[in-house]
Order: sequence, then C-alpha cells, then structure tokens
Amino acid sequence: MTDLWQEAMDHAVNVARKAGEIVREALQNERKVMCKSTSVDLVTQTDQKVEQLIIASVREKFPSHSFIGEESVADGQPCVLSENPTWIIDPVDGTTNFVHGYPFVAVCIGFAVEKTLEFGVVYSCIEDKMYTARRGKGAFCNGEPLQVSQQKDINQCIIATEFGSNRDPAVVDKIFSNMRNILCLPVHGVRGVGSAALNMCLVAAGSVEAYYEIGIHCWDIAAAAVIVEEAGGVLRDLEGGPMDLMSRRILAANNQTIGERVITEVEVFPAERDDAPSQTK
Amino acid sequence: MTDLWQEAMDHAVNVARKAGEIVREALQNERKVMCKSTSVDLVTQTDQKVEQLIIASVREKFPSHSFIGEESVADGQPCVLSENPTWIIDPVDGTTNFVHGYPFVAVCIGFAVEKTLEFGVVYSCIEDKMYTARRGKGAFCNGEPLQVSQQKDINQCIIATEFGSNRDPAVVDKIFSNMRNILCLPVHGVRGVGSAALNMCLVAAGSVEAYYEIGIHCWDIAAAAVIVEEAGGVLRDLEGGPMDLMSRRILAANNQTIGERVITEVEVFPAERDDAPSQTK
Repeated sequence: MTDLWQEAMDHAVNVARKAGEIVREALQNERKVMCKSTSVDLVTQTDQKVEQLIIASVREKFPSHSFIGEESVADGQPCVLSENPTWIIDPVDGTTNFVHGYPFVAVCIGFAVEKTLEFGVVYSCIEDKMYTARRGKGAFCNGEPLQVSQQKDINQCIIATEFGSNRDPAVVDKIFSNMRNILCLPVHGVRGVGSAALNMCLVAAGSVEAYYEIGIHCWDIAAAAVIVEEAGGVLRDLEGGPMDLMSRRILAANNQTIGERVITEVEVFPAERDDAPSQTK
Repeated sequence: MTDLWQEAMDHAVNVARKAGEIVREALQNERKVMCKSTSVDLVTQTDQKVEQLIIASVREKFPSHSFIGEESVADGQPCVLSENPTWIIDPVDGTTNFVHGYPFVAVCIGFAVEKTLEFGVVYSCIEDKMYTARRGKGAFCNGEPLQVSQQKDINQCIIATEFGSNRDPAVVDKIFSNMRNILCLPVHGVRGVGSAALNMCLVAAGSVEAYYEIGIHCWDIAAAAVIVEEAGGVLRDLEGGPMDLMSRRILAANNQTIGERVITEVEVFPAERDDAPSQTK
C-alpha cells in the first residue's frame, strides 16, 4: 500500500496549494469591503468552499476513504476516527488571523490509516510555505528538511501557546496562570502565531522549542503532528501519556526533556472531547 | 532641505537592506553551530557589526549628523535627541527571535530633524519585507501603500503586545493584568510577533488594530512610528498625551477610538526614561 499513500500525499499537496490560492484570493478580493457584519460570513464561506473543494477532489480519486473536516463536523457529520483511511481537514486554520489578514493562515490535511497518522500537509498560504511530512520519511518546508531545536535547557527556550477563543473567566484564569508559570521558569519568551498548525510547524522548524494548548480540535493538529514527529520532535497528552488526537489538548516539543518540563507547569482544564457523543461541532 | 532628506531616506533603505543581508547570513551560517553559551555572543556580535555598518555608511555621506543606536548607548554613548539631524538605529529588533530563528527580525532606522521624525525604514529581513514611510508622503511595504484597519469596534480587534524580557514579579503582574483586561473586553485576539517595530508595522498594514508596550526603547519604535502615522494611524503615550519617544512606552493604534479604549485598560508601570541622566544602557 506504500505507493498508494504516496499518491494520496502528492494529491494532498496539490489540493492544499489550490485551496491556499482560494484563501489568498478571498483575502485579497474581499477583505477590503469587509465590515463587522460580513467578516463572519467571509470566514464561513471560505471555510466551506475550501473544505468542499478538498473533499470533492479526494473523493473522486479515493472514493472509499473517510473524512473528518471542521465544516462537516459543524454541519453534523460524526467526528470519529475509524480504521478506514481518513482525511482530517482544517480548511482554514487561524480563522481570526484570516479575518484580519494577519499573516498566519494554514490549510491542513492529515491522513490516518488504522488510526495511525501516515502523512500531514500544512500549507501556510500567506507566507507560501508548504510543510509536508510522511511517516518515516522526514519533514520538509518547501522541500527543505526540517529539524527541531536541540535545546535541552528550558531557560533558553521559546514556548508557543495561545489565549484561544474561550472567554469564560475560569478558563481564562487557567490559561493565564499556565502561561505565567511557563514565562517565569523563566524562558526566553512566550509566543503564538494564532494557528495551532503553524505553531507546531515552528516547533518542527526549530524556531520554538514547544507548543501546548487546550481547546484545539483534531483537525487543527492531525497534519502538523506528523510534521513535528518527522522533524524529530515528540507529541504528548498534557497529562503525560501519548498524544490523543480527540482529547482537545496537545503538547508538541523538540524533545522529551523540554516536553516534560512544560507538562509539569501546565494545569489541564476540561474540554469536551471531539469524539464525545454529544459533540456535534 | 526636502531633497536632502529624500537622499537620506534612500540611503537608509539601501543600508537597511545590506544590514538585513548580514543578519540573514548570521542566522543561516551560525545558528546551526550555536549553543547556550554562544547565543548571546552571536546576538551581540551581529548587533554591533550591523550598527557599525549603518553608522559608518551614514557618517561618510552625512558627516554632521548625530546618532542614537542601541549598541552605542549600551557602550556608554548618550541617548539624547538634539535639534541636529539624528539617525535612531536598532540594528536587530527582536533579538530573542533572532537567536531562535523565529521569523520576525527587523533592522530599524528612524531619522529626526529638530526632534521631529522625518522618515522611518523597517526591514523585516527574514520575511524580506521593506517597510518605509516619509512624513507627509505615505507608508509602504515593498512599494505597496499601507493603510490601517478601519475598525472602530474594539470587540472586532486584534491587539498586539509582548510579555517583554523583564521577569520581576511586580512587572509580570502588571503585564498579565493589562493583557487580561484587553483580552476580556473581549477582543478577537491578542498577539505579538516579538518585535516592537514589526508589531507596529502590522498596525500600519491593518492586520492588528493596536499595539501597546511598556519597557521598549526609542530605537525600537522611532522608525515604525513614522510608518504607523503615514498609514493613517495614531501614536499616543499610554498615559494619554502625545507619544514621547524617550518614555519607554507606546500606544500605536488604527484610530483614536480604538487607541483611547486600549489606554483605558492599560495600567502604566514605571520604566526609567531612555534620556534619564543615570541611563547608560
């Protein structure tokens, strides 16, 4: 089946680039006339258009495959990873950035077979950076190999995370106290580009040592997870076990030492699983 | 004198590009072999090399002009803005980013005559974006005109700020409480790219509505200040008056409405002025 998955990956790269063009055009043509009432529509329209493009194009080539997509799940489709080859799609990761033309917006396509991620494609479409990785074959950005930072001293690190979109005071409390714990270790800095996938790609590229977040979804991280691992990084659940794609939380780090150190400082708060029966969005 | 300042600005653009090449080369050649003990040296060496290049090249062309440069001030030179034409230089804005290869590093050259900023050049050298503005002549990025966001609803904004490098608990308290006030207005998001100048350029480009920070220096903001104003934005002191270049704090906003709203939420804490007699760094 090896050749088939390579074909699937080549297809993912091509369709991600096409999708990225649509995102860029939407930004260039429509952002100028965008006002408060239409910005949400612009996101939704572009999200849906891009996801439909990707799914239609993949379905034509691989009719038996399954899909988990942000917009499909929002539309009531189940969010369950089966043994079947499954494409996990975030049409526009970094929607707030997209609305503002903040330059970190990504098309994310992950691919799992028998619940194992086989490849990931993250196209940072404003930067025009194509991040790709296939299990066992290394990670690349525009064809150049990626490698995580070799840093093992937490005090010399940049850690990436996000404030997220939840403004519930109890959640905000935890987000701030976690961030402060990390900042005051101390570390060199705390950053976040506003896209889970691109924060993870920056781990893979060696620009930040670790990224953690609670509240993300499987489609935000599936593709980039392969990229981090293939660049030599590690993925963990924030409670310490292996990464659980559906758990709404992640730690991606350059190595075990830094990863464990971050986990120690971060207190987890509840977020309903992506595959919870009640979860329709 | 108009033509002379245009000549000065053209020179600034050329030397900023040359300086940016040095920064990029330093990153590419030396970062691979960099470890804990050498990272500080790399920053210092590159900072000094770039500042010396800029000053030597300007001095040759404009021998009567004055300079305020980050490295010169660190070296004991005075940090006082006189009536004399003065070049205000930050050789590498975003030094933490530089050490990590995090892609926001800028060469900043501002120019003031009779204490009024006449032009600003900010070269984001990893992104290869040349931001330029001359008083009364508009702001540009790679030759394309820049315009601030038209947003007047604070709830639809992205606000940029930084955690900074001060880890004094009292300062960290204020930084976090200010950030939380802003986040919970609520706004769309809080971001920071790790460079004061590039946060300001993102205000000018319309990607973020406002940027505030306490603890920055005059060389971090002088060049970008012209770019923000020429893109239609406003500059204020965080206590409400006009921007004071030496005050170690700044608000840059897309308009008065958003600017005033941010000022209301931000509590100022003390930072010794750049032109304080005791300030030698």
